Amino acid sequence: MRISDLGEFGLIDLVRQWTQPDQSATDAAAYRLTVANGDDAAALTFPAGPLTRLYTTDTMVAGVHFTAGTTPWRDLGWKAIASNISDVAAMGGEPEAALVTLGLPPDTPVAGVEQLYAGMMEICRQFGAQIIGGDMVRSPVAFITVALTGACSGSPMVRTVAQPGHVVAVTGPLGSSAGGLRQLLETGAGESIDESELVQQHRRPLPHVAAGQALAAAGVRSAMDVSDGLADDLAKLCAASGVSAEIYANKVPALSALKTAFPDDWLDLALYGGEDYVLLFTAPADIMDAAMTRLPPGGAVIGEVKAGEPGSVLVLDGQGSPRLRAGAGWDHFAA
Amino acid sequence: MRISDLGEFGLIDLVRQWTQPDQSATDAAAYRLTVANGDDAAALTFPAGPLTRLYTTDTMVAGVHFTAGTTPWRDLGWKAIASNISDVAAMGGEPEAALVTLGLPPDTPVAGVEQLYAGMMEICRQFGAQIIGGDMVRSPVAFITVALTGACSGSPMVRTVAQPGHVVAVTGPLGSSAGGLRQLLETGAGESIDESELVQQHRRPLPHVAAGQALAAAGVRSAMDVSDGLADDLAKLCAASGVSAEIYANKVPALSALKTAFPDDWLDLALYGGEDYVLLFTAPADIMDAAMTRLPPGGAVIGEVKAGEPGSVLVLDGQGSPRLRAGAGWDHFAA
Repeated sequence: MRISDLGEFGLIDLVRQWTQPDQSATDAAAYRLTVANGDDAAALTFPAGPLTRLYTTDTMVAGVHFTAGTTPWRDLGWKAIASNISDVAAMGGEPEAALVTLGLPPDTPVAGVEQLYAGMMEICRQFGAQIIGGDMVRSPVAFITVALTGACSGSPMVRTVAQPGHVVAVTGPLGSSAGGLRQLLETGAGESIDESELVQQHRRPLPHVAAGQALAAAGVRSAMDVSDGLADDLAKLCAASGVSAEIYANKVPALSALKTAFPDDWLDLALYGGEDYVLLFTAPADIMDAAMTRLPPGGAVIGEVKAGEPGSVLVLDGQGSPRLRAGAGWDHFAA
Repeated sequence: MRISDLGEFGLIDLVRQWTQPDQSATDAAAYRLTVANGDDAAALTFPAGPLTRLYTTDTMVAGVHFTAGTTPWRDLGWKAIASNISDVAAMGGEPEAALVTLGLPPDTPVAGVEQLYAGMMEICRQFGAQIIGGDMVRSPVAFITVALTGACSGSPMVRTVAQPGHVVAVTGPLGSSAGGLRQLLETGAGESIDESELVQQHRRPLPHVAAGQALAAAGVRSAMDVSDGLADDLAKLCAASGVSAEIYANKVPALSALKTAFPDDWLDLALYGGEDYVLLFTAPADIMDAAMTRLPPGGAVIGEVKAGEPGSVLVLDGQGSPRLRAGAGWDHFAA
């Protein structure tokens, strides 16, 4: 069997089985693994420290996750770090230290690599992270892997504790990055497009670190980041928690720039577009009320967690009728 | 300018400049960066813990670091973890938690990925490490990136503190992995070759974790692991410390299996062959004496640190005359 037959998530399920630690290894470890493989980040606690330490990693491959010709190096650096910071934000943590691995063809321009690091350093400075090491190797295809550590006080927020009756919410507008990408593809890069709010969101997404910490402080326990698209990531959260969810299409927040640019498609972009790095979370109504008042503006309640087929997500229109799903998420290995 | 014009180490020097942290970032951090980019691992200390935490990452790319057709998946998994554990060993630490990133073509056999994880789990169990997370992405070329954390008590051993007058030593025999690879290339895989001690060393190199801890306990401060070849890695240690070194060819330890299989070439394999994951270290004579008695058998004193051209390494033959260098190390980006 080929991995394309299994798909990304089938393969991930197998890997989780293959990497199941023996109890003896866990007993012998000098730390406690409080969140294992399968969440936004892994979490360890150590006997001597009050903080939980978070560990995440994320990779971008040329031709798969970015296009060498059209993604400026500086933006690529920014995004490679942003996706990792977002994973830490989704656990309620702050980023700390990054290891950066580059696979590069020998004919890569040095000026490009310099710009890549400039983009990484820029977002690191903005979010208080530091690049502490890494690896550089020759590769026929360019790739960038970032491993990031972070810390949070108390228990990290996870994907596995959503409960029927929880309210579902997000920390900001959705679809902006997908809208920016479509503008770039339709128009091509140029001075005027560079000023588009959507293009800026596509090129320099801002992880919701402050929002994640506000949620954790308000008592929210169930969260993840939206990297593959709202509907798809909510389905993952529901599957991990053994629940289903309904979301109300007319409550999904989006920038007015998105609605103006794509009056017919904005909702599909908001429901199925990825890489906004907004946080998705669920909580009982009273905690949700407290959380929404602590959040920076832009967030919105969008639905409800239900019992029912684990992992299923129903999108309802303004009349409460099921809306046909127009797109599907991103499967890394599907043919 | 292309990165092939700079070479790996020229590029690494630039990256070190580009990632220099602002003092303000360092002041604001909740940890202290005690060993930065450029050593076997980066090291952080945290206010609340007595241990120094180590962070390293290492990547293998198909066609560059391994050959998909001839490297068994299980051995590939073993080696991908081994090279990282060796970096932690070189600092005097113990491995803890690993993040594993796989880039895989969609037609990769699932059974191969299963074997890869089996190899990783096998060495993790043997050295008390755990796989806590990772990432899996589609890629036209297979690659595996492991990021590993570890811990050591006290200050980690580093590459930057070798002093003229230090004695140079290694923790075990060299050239075994290169000899095993040559046997495989000359003979092809098969039952009889599988039993070769050299082939076993090539396929399942054992990081010197216990030796690294023994060295640190004996007061050794200057060490690194031999991954690219003894002469080459000693040159790196010397360059990082601003010193030079002389090594005595007739003191370089090698398995008798290597001398038997390659009576003419064994010394070149021992001096210039990589991936043995032996530790290379320097210390004042009195500390060296104490260290050698604590080490597991197999180690040997092989030379001396000198003042002189930083980074230059002179290999002397049995008569004390310079030996012509027959090979050169591995530059990841050279054409």
